[in-house]
Amino acid sequence: MATGTLPLVFNGANVPLILYLLIHVEVILCQQFVIPFKAPSDCKAEEFFDISSLSCVSCGPNQSRSRTGLSCVCQTGYQTLTTDKASISCQQCPIDKPAVTRDGFGCIRCPGSLNDEGNCKCPPENILVERDINGNLLDEARCETCNGESPALTVPNSRGDRCERCQASFINTSCDCNSPNVLAGGLCFRPGSLSTNVNPSVNYAQLKFSLQSAWFLENLYASSAACLVSSNLTACQALGNMCVMNMHSFSGVSTDACGLFNTIFRSKAALSSAQDISYWRANLPWLYYGDEPGLASRVLQTEPVPSGFSFRGRKKNTDIRLLAAIYNVRGEFLRWEPVGGRNLQLCPQPATKQAAAFSFGTAYQESCDLSVAELLGSHPEPLFYDVFMDVGGGENTRLLPLPTLVLNQQYNGRFINQESMKNWYLSRRMFLIDMLSGREKNTNSLPKVIRVASSVKIRFQLVPRTQEGQVFPPLMVVTYRDIPITDINAQTVSTSFAVEYEMDQNEARMKTDTALGVMGGVAVLYSLLKTVSWKRRSATTDVDGVTLVNFLFFYAGDLANVFFIVTVGTGLYWLIFYKAQQFVSVLLPLPAQEEKLVTYIGCAFALKAIQFLHKLFSQVSVDMFLIDWERPRSKTSRTVQAAGESKREPSPVSIWRTYFVANEWNEIQTIRKISPTFQIVTVLFFLEVLGFSSLALRDPWATLQRPSEAYTPSYSLTLRYGLAATLWICIGLLQVIFFTVFYEHFVEDKIRQFVDLCSISNISVLVLSHSCFGYYIHGRSVHGHADTNMEEMNNNLRREQESLCGQRGLLPNTDIQTFQVALTKSLRSQYSKIQDSISRRNRPSRLTDATMGHFSEPQCKAYHTMNHFLASVIDHAFPDKDYIVKDKLMFERVVGMEFLEPSEKSIFYNDEAHSFSSVLFYGNEGTLLIFDTLFFCVVDLGSQSFVLAAVLTYVQQMIFCFIRNTLGRRNLAHKTLVDKRFLI
Amino acid sequence: MATGTLPLVFNGANVPLILYLLIHVEVILCQQFVIPFKAPSDCKAEEFFDISSLSCVSCGPNQSRSRTGLSCVCQTGYQTLTTDKASISCQQCPIDKPAVTRDGFGCIRCPGSLNDEGNCKCPPENILVERDINGNLLDEARCETCNGESPALTVPNSRGDRCERCQASFINTSCDCNSPNVLAGGLCFRPGSLSTNVNPSVNYAQLKFSLQSAWFLENLYASSAACLVSSNLTACQALGNMCVMNMHSFSGVSTDACGLFNTIFRSKAALSSAQDISYWRANLPWLYYGDEPGLASRVLQTEPVPSGFSFRGRKKNTDIRLLAAIYNVRGEFLRWEPVGGRNLQLCPQPATKQAAAFSFGTAYQESCDLSVAELLGSHPEPLFYDVFMDVGGGENTRLLPLPTLVLNQQYNGRFINQESMKNWYLSRRMFLIDMLSGREKNTNSLPKVIRVASSVKIRFQLVPRTQEGQVFPPLMVVTYRDIPITDINAQTVSTSFAVEYEMDQNEARMKTDTALGVMGGVAVLYSLLKTVSWKRRSATTDVDGVTLVNFLFFYAGDLANVFFIVTVGTGLYWLIFYKAQQFVSVLLPLPAQEEKLVTYIGCAFALKAIQFLHKLFSQVSVDMFLIDWERPRSKTSRTVQAAGESKREPSPVSIWRTYFVANEWNEIQTIRKISPTFQIVTVLFFLEVLGFSSLALRDPWATLQRPSEAYTPSYSLTLRYGLAATLWICIGLLQVIFFTVFYEHFVEDKIRQFVDLCSISNISVLVLSHSCFGYYIHGRSVHGHADTNMEEMNNNLRREQESLCGQRGLLPNTDIQTFQVALTKSLRSQYSKIQDSISRRNRPSRLTDATMGHFSEPQCKAYHTMNHFLASVIDHAFPDKDYIVKDKLMFERVVGMEFLEPSEKSIFYNDEAHSFSSVLFYGNEGTLLIFDTLFFCVVDLGSQSFVLAAVLTYVQQMIFCFIRNTLGRRNLAHKTLVDKRFLI
Repeated sequence: MATGTLPLVFNGANVPLILYLLIHVEVILCQQFVIPFKAPSDCKAEEFFDISSLSCVSCGPNQSRSRTGLSCVCQTGYQTLTTDKASISCQQCPIDKPAVTRDGFGCIRCPGSLNDEGNCKCPPENILVERDINGNLLDEARCETCNGESPALTVPNSRGDRCERCQASFINTSCDCNSPNVLAGGLCFRPGSLSTNVNPSVNYAQLKFSLQSAWFLENLYASSAACLVSSNLTACQALGNMCVMNMHSFSGVSTDACGLFNTIFRSKAALSSAQDISYWRANLPWLYYGDEPGLASRVLQTEPVPSGFSFRGRKKNTDIRLLAAIYNVRGEFLRWEPVGGRNLQLCPQPATKQAAAFSFGTAYQESCDLSVAELLGSHPEPLFYDVFMDVGGGENTRLLPLPTLVLNQQYNGRFINQESMKNWYLSRRMFLIDMLSGREKNTNSLPKVIRVASSVKIRFQLVPRTQEGQVFPPLMVVTYRDIPITDINAQTVSTSFAVEYEMDQNEARMKTDTALGVMGGVAVLYSLLKTVSWKRRSATTDVDGVTLVNFLFFYAGDLANVFFIVTVGTGLYWLIFYKAQQFVSVLLPLPAQEEKLVTYIGCAFALKAIQFLHKLFSQVSVDMFLIDWERPRSKTSRTVQAAGESKREPSPVSIWRTYFVANEWNEIQTIRKISPTFQIVTVLFFLEVLGFSSLALRDPWATLQRPSEAYTPSYSLTLRYGLAATLWICIGLLQVIFFTVFYEHFVEDKIRQFVDLCSISNISVLVLSHSCFGYYIHGRSVHGHADTNMEEMNNNLRREQESLCGQRGLLPNTDIQTFQVALTKSLRSQYSKIQDSISRRNRPSRLTDATMGHFSEPQCKAYHTMNHFLASVIDHAFPDKDYIVKDKLMFERVVGMEFLEPSEKSIFYNDEAHSFSSVLFYGNEGTLLIFDTLFFCVVDLGSQSFVLAAVLTYVQQMIFCFIRNTLGRRNLAHKTLVDKRFLI
Repeated sequence: MATGTLPLVFNGANVPLILYLLIHVEVILCQQFVIPFKAPSDCKAEEFFDISSLSCVSCGPNQSRSRTGLSCVCQTGYQTLTTDKASISCQQCPIDKPAVTRDGFGCIRCPGSLNDEGNCKCPPENILVERDINGNLLDEARCETCNGESPALTVPNSRGDRCERCQASFINTSCDCNSPNVLAGGLCFRPGSLSTNVNPSVNYAQLKFSLQSAWFLENLYASSAACLVSSNLTACQALGNMCVMNMHSFSGVSTDACGLFNTIFRSKAALSSAQDISYWRANLPWLYYGDEPGLASRVLQTEPVPSGFSFRGRKKNTDIRLLAAIYNVRGEFLRWEPVGGRNLQLCPQPATKQAAAFSFGTAYQESCDLSVAELLGSHPEPLFYDVFMDVGGGENTRLLPLPTLVLNQQYNGRFINQESMKNWYLSRRMFLIDMLSGREKNTNSLPKVIRVASSVKIRFQLVPRTQEGQVFPPLMVVTYRDIPITDINAQTVSTSFAVEYEMDQNEARMKTDTALGVMGGVAVLYSLLKTVSWKRRSATTDVDGVTLVNFLFFYAGDLANVFFIVTVGTGLYWLIFYKAQQFVSVLLPLPAQEEKLVTYIGCAFALKAIQFLHKLFSQVSVDMFLIDWERPRSKTSRTVQAAGESKREPSPVSIWRTYFVANEWNEIQTIRKISPTFQIVTVLFFLEVLGFSSLALRDPWATLQRPSEAYTPSYSLTLRYGLAATLWICIGLLQVIFFTVFYEHFVEDKIRQFVDLCSISNISVLVLSHSCFGYYIHGRSVHGHADTNMEEMNNNLRREQESLCGQRGLLPNTDIQTFQVALTKSLRSQYSKIQDSISRRNRPSRLTDATMGHFSEPQCKAYHTMNHFLASVIDHAFPDKDYIVKDKLMFERVVGMEFLEPSEKSIFYNDEAHSFSSVLFYGNEGTLLIFDTLFFCVVDLGSQSFVLAAVLTYVQQMIFCFIRNTLGRRNLAHKTLVDKRFLI
């Protein structure tokens, strides 16, 4: 081992040293530097703890370790000779001076016996004198009596080596406190001032037991008596503290702390109040507000705090400045301290986060679990806080006392403060951790029970209709928890600190309900109108169950819109007014106050879902037919049919144009005015990447990116909903504008392309959304033929582009190709008859080989019949099924109902707006957008996660798109006889 | 005012009281409860602070306030008469006893003069005696001298009222410390033991100035002398502490703290070492490891800590148990304390978070700004920590001292510890906040400079190739900051605490580089092969620039794959091995060690992007033609052409089937084997909703959802990349499997549908991806005609389904419709010639009316020529352009090159795998998937936000889809003469 011969030199290279080292490297490295752990308490009685080497080292002869264990002292009977060196040496005292002096350096003779430490022992009430007045050691120590009589009035001091003046309360004639005087807490009381029958127990109501507290036993009588008799300020405070430790509770007996306080309070009624506040008696702490009923609401809701709060602008004032007067358990005033940091907030948090608690408008909540063992170390005695709010500002600070509501306070066994406000007893003064009152034997023992303020909540309430940010006096709500100590090292206690802001929401709620009522009424009317329109279009007249069901469907949709408007309006209202206000005039609804809004959102979603499903399933069951105008070429090319040629079949009209049109129709079924995925991605981008989601936090700031060290309040459901819905709707509208104004004009417009395609392919489309109402796309080719080869197609296209041929419209010289059609019943019945024969034949075959999807001969015949029939109708070939073309009235457009009944002739309404898209997703963007919005918001409200909401919205859109596509494709194949294989 | 007459009664209803109250309610409410703020210091000299009413109250006559301001005392010259009541009364002392006794209750005559407080004044070295030994007050006080000579050896005590034994260092003969003895720090030293010429300055190297420190001035000499002479343990510790406060720094002079320490260290070489550690002298603190070069690496990297760490399993051991021996600045040992909680971690954080610092493997970092004013209150004196690690466990705890690296340590002005490891001087003992050494005048003044440990970092290093979680002794790296005090209330100081884990990454890096090298080499070969294949397919032979460029493109793709495989492999390796290991055998690379990986990922992305763009642009420039097999019906229906009919044009073959096929081809251009949006949404769902992102945190736990109160370490880029890439690839592969195995079989297969459509529509597709290589889809209808009406189409379909007609294959009785074709040069040149006439004519017209997109007459003719030519070729009509059909060899498939050169005959390779999709997105899923993965990961690495990465990936996909669609559509229209308007 390289022991102690390795000099540490720092003045450059040291060659021999290095050589030495190199040789000993092995040794050093084996050395491992691991030492055993020794604490001072691990050392034996004859060892001391060497603070240099952190090990136990033997003391010298005749020595033993000192009380701290860090040094050695001489054994009993040995005097200390020298402490010059690191160690002392001891020498036995001679037999004639067997005792050691108190300083340990001398030997002395005793007048009496020796005590365990080997010093002289004097009787109590005596003092031990070892040196004369000049410091010369006596040969024999003396025991002297202190003169307790006036005017000396002395008693031995605590070390027992001097006579000192006794405590003032003793001094009438002497330092004795003889019966009938009462000695308590080091004071001497004259009899009769207070009954000595006091109840020093602390009641733990949560645990349903009480305890004789050592502290109360020692101090309750003395404090009460000193407070009552001599108006001792600290004694009065100490008594008050004991009442606070007892939860401000009153029982029938008046001998407990609060009972005694009350007795003294009443006895001092003649004295003036402190600070002119009638609940605050001079010399006493202010513990209670009065007990008259309704006082709580008068204190809390009558007079606003003088200074108002403002979030921005020149007069910005969001600082809540709370000050606490702090007393210790003995009733001594320690200091004024600004509340913040660690005094009321027990949970350790960075200062920046903790400071957010006192920024007005920021809903603050922190909670944590604290180790009981650590609390015991850091809070052996409770501190008592009288909390005030600084309302003055500037030089002459003025303070508003904060009323406190102790939820544990009992009044004759009832927890009155957990009842309604009219029963509340407000109080003052609180503590955070009481490890003292639960000590039973003596005040140094381990507590049996501790009491912790498990929840401290400061509640601000806004003055109704204030424009200047005025609030009522804030209320502190304190809940204590009684924790029986079982395993102090393992036990933890949870504690929380919160600041809440509240305003009366009744007005807002009433406004919401009024809006709902009024708009709900309008919705009924509108739904009725829709039902009437539906009845006309369906050509039914009697009011039956189907009508009612349809009415309900319409009403569901309209009511959903009403709920949606009202809820988004509410959300947006809070978002704008709360986040943008200068002087505080509104505060967010508390989570409990948001329940109604959530219900409304739920209603909106459910009703919208009903409407959406209804639309979806009516869309996939529309009647439609593709009318092929193409006539076989061999026929048309020759006007006279030659007899010799009659056997020759005309070359058939190719079905591929129909396939093409059907295929395209299939493709446009689920296109929308927006890109739904882009919508989701953009919303997510705004919320999660740009940080718009921070706008929904319960604080008044409108900043998007918060630093990570700042406090993050909880989210407000209202704001979250308002934000998400608004953002979704806005981005949706922007997309609609982009797609309709820009994209469809300059890139591609699928709907227009489809109409063009109809025209080029010489195929018309008839879609019947109701039994007697529908849409017609006139696709008759202006060239007569479309079933031709490339040259002719190109020629046709070129000619049309150069306007060398007629116009595409149904009426000559018009361009209008799209119509809303109201059919007469006779036309419809004819249509239905043919349609039936298309469908009916299909049914048995579906049962046999449904997967084949082939169409039977009669079906094809029916198809041709239908084609011919409809083409003839359009060509005005049937006088009894004729139609007229007219414009729709403005009012008809607005209410969505036709006034003219198609009794004799069907009516074709010009419709340049392509309203046939209402049987596609495209024409129902509004419903879809609102449905998606609500879906997104509902998922978000449930999960508080925008990402999850986005994912689920995407999945929902996929599923419904798939359903719509599949069912729509099946319907298309079924109604137009186009084989599914061509709808790809 | 309702003053004091309102008794507080708590015993039930009190009718008169309530009546009284009702009358006085107005009064009470006006009262407002606002009080002015008064602090004890606000009260005037004749006022005291009433702790009950929190206001200033006048003292009685002849009184003034006490020092605390909380009570009144009698003025100078007045004796206190009684304190029985709350207030005292004072009475002037009679003229014959003008002085007040020290207890204030009596009057006395003085032997000398009076002091300012009105008490008697004795000369220094004397004591004042006012009472006799029994406590009786003397008429006249006495001043007595203490006997300083042996054996009395007394001096006056601090209050000056008693003689007490003087300090041991004085005691040779008397309590005087006369010259040549030196009095320092209350001790008396014999001359010569140590030169009194010490340098009590503290050097602030960061601020480039030093300061005469009051503490050093008082204590440096005394501590050094006491340590040297009497080996006083606390003095030695105090001296060591001063050296620590001086940053362990040595300068040339040896009279500063560390110089003195070193002197004493050397002088004690003869003594034994403490704990057998040669750097640790008995009685001295252990401050330095030796100064031999390379010692740091030997200490830190030779011998592992005895106990190993394990993350899970029965032997789970992740607790880092650090213990600190704490000394105060005077060198007193205070206690052993487990490190954790608030001793080294200055930033307030919840205990659960702070505890994470000592969980092995969790990269911990906390930092915050602390207010200097608060620090001054909480840390007026520094505490010194000797930190050990508990390596024993169980009963016999053993401690490993942690070497400390003080970055501020200077050695002759050089910051040696900021240099490379071989220059390091390790040390021991540290402090956190030193508010003491910067006090210049006296130790109670405000410090001029404070020193704060602005960064404390504990660094663990894993033993290379350990399988049992062994680590080398951890190193503490401490950086102090010197802060000159300017405005103590506004100043803040930032401080951080970190725990880092490190392992030697050279081996991993070497492995990565080896893998890269090997696979890069293979990639070169593979790219060469591809180039050769490309040259054959393009029918060029000479090696020119184009070849080189193509080689580079291929090489970019292959190299990208190599980089991708290596980086994902690395990421996955860390993810699996770090998160799943039981005994610790690997530790994550530190952020600085990740740079290389990030570079590799960047390379992979850039190269992949090149490959992707290359593919994209070759895809949108392929040659293709739709061969229509349909012949005019009038011709085919009659075998002999009648002369009378010759004038009659045959009814033209409808172009609509071609349109249909072209339209479908247009639609399948950008379909993929996966749904890209679903991919993004799912990845986001896993990462952000299910919480997979927590797997990328720098801790060893594999739990997904972390409680909000738990500590969140920083993210590891490596893990983030490994996680995101793996997740993306896995979900991609699962999607590919789902779509190819399930969806395309049971729902729809767009590629198969397209091939079917070709067959039904009697149209073949020839796609030439290279000049002499391409794909052929044989679409000749088995029914001879497809351009027909619905009945026939249905019949055809039914017949085919019932297998009543031939098979669809190119060869008789085969089913194979898809081929890879290798064309002869002559065939290609013929093709090109016709193609040219299609395109060339087009060019001028494009200039005139490019937007029209019409095709000229010659183009149509060329189209027909091409159609006829290709149909004839397929029909073996040209003997010189004949072809053979054969299977591809397995090896040919694998290397993607044809061995036979199509010199005489073209070769049609059977290709059931639809490999024509390689000119679509569909056939390049691998490239696209990897490109998307890399894009996602690169964005995420840059922004650390998965949501942003998802959003940008979506946008990127949209953009490239749009480009591919638009250009592909243009190419399609251009090559097949199908008007763009039909490609919708």
